[in-house]
Amino acid sequence: MPQATLRNMTLELHYWPAIQGRGEFVRLALEAAGAAYVDVARGDAAAGLGMAALQRRLDDARCAHPPFAPPFVKDGDLLVGQTAAILHHLAPELKLVGRSAAARLWTLQIQMTIGDMVDEAHDTHHPIAPGLYYEEQQPEARRRARDFCATRMPKYLRWFERILRQNPAGQRHLVGGRLSYADLSLFQLVEGLRYAFPKAAARVLATTPHVTALHQRVAVLPRVAAYLRSPRRIPFNEQGIFRCYPELDSE
Amino acid sequence: MPQATLRNMTLELHYWPAIQGRGEFVRLALEAAGAAYVDVARGDAAAGLGMAALQRRLDDARCAHPPFAPPFVKDGDLLVGQTAAILHHLAPELKLVGRSAAARLWTLQIQMTIGDMVDEAHDTHHPIAPGLYYEEQQPEARRRARDFCATRMPKYLRWFERILRQNPAGQRHLVGGRLSYADLSLFQLVEGLRYAFPKAAARVLATTPHVTALHQRVAVLPRVAAYLRSPRRIPFNEQGIFRCYPELDSE
Repeated sequence: MPQATLRNMTLELHYWPAIQGRGEFVRLALEAAGAAYVDVARGDAAAGLGMAALQRRLDDARCAHPPFAPPFVKDGDLLVGQTAAILHHLAPELKLVGRSAAARLWTLQIQMTIGDMVDEAHDTHHPIAPGLYYEEQQPEARRRARDFCATRMPKYLRWFERILRQNPAGQRHLVGGRLSYADLSLFQLVEGLRYAFPKAAARVLATTPHVTALHQRVAVLPRVAAYLRSPRRIPFNEQGIFRCYPELDSE
Repeated sequence: MPQATLRNMTLELHYWPAIQGRGEFVRLALEAAGAAYVDVARGDAAAGLGMAALQRRLDDARCAHPPFAPPFVKDGDLLVGQTAAILHHLAPELKLVGRSAAARLWTLQIQMTIGDMVDEAHDTHHPIAPGLYYEEQQPEARRRARDFCATRMPKYLRWFERILRQNPAGQRHLVGGRLSYADLSLFQLVEGLRYAFPKAAARVLATTPHVTALHQRVAVLPRVAAYLRSPRRIPFNEQGIFRCYPELDSE
């Protein structure tokens, strides 16, 4: 991993400029670590940034490692896509993962499962096709969201609860005895679920006290709290993954 | 990574015994490398194997790294879930990934994207809920499958084609100049698409000649070919991820 370049050059984060989306898991890790980065698509076109800069990278016909979709990061000469792979790559330098190969692997595994739940949360409003509007798949969305709230959300959140409960190093963190990017991502996941499904999330989180406590602890970490108050944090909205459609929420 | 234990103890693969599913990506890597492994849930209950053995691991209340779902492997003392994380972990020992951190990361990234496409292929017959039968979500399945065949399948397969075309080390492999687990997984993905969507897959694969050629090359690798002919290869069926429902296929 060319980590030297991460120190020498500013990391570029490439993601859609108007939503938290999957990019937020990367942004949160960078912010929590106090790392310098450029949020490319939100930058000024006059400075060579903006959506055109993101699109140029995505379309580059000479790129050896073309990303499938945002988010992706440019770290020196290395272009890395897939949220969990990005975090796995950046975390040692950001000090957001344990040093052992086993700790890195377990953190990655948890992040991938968070990613699976994020995909399912997305599909509650897009069960048929990502290219159609919500309004074109609303009856199907209601059915899928009902199952998500009743079955999938409890299944996932109870798994995170179990990890915390069974962590030999204590119940404050998902991996070992200190903060990792998986903790930050679980915070973001809970934020999203509470925004999109306030009733269902409250019901399930009442049964997962360790998850709830971890969420509260991450929210008040000084760098995280400062970030959440800053204009760099895009508010949740109905173009993102977590959307507040009351008709999709259920007790 | 406790690779010494992989050499000393037989690796355990835990996956549902009657389908290829996500476990097949792991099985294929182990078979292509000629590695010794026990396919636990397909073993004899009298020998302490079978579904009860898988379930015992899944339910273990003292396990520090409980898997969310099969597939998972037990490699010495280490339990690893999530298909892409399993392959990332096993590949150096199996010699199915390049040695550099950059090669390992790029291979992981491709595998994660293959996994995303597998999820979407699964959701063509289960767009509403994994816990319901196909017959309970058939109208929604038809709609989702139509979009998958028309939009998503070309988008993914053209990305794999582009990776092959833009690979600086040549167009025979996804990563560098030799076989990796990503090549094996792309083979398996094409097999599944051809089984589930023969018409749509033929149409799209006609536009991705490098993907088609890679699939053909993998199929005749001696260990892969021997495995595919063996009783260890479970045939595709309508309980797995790739299901042949003609009403979901389209030209």
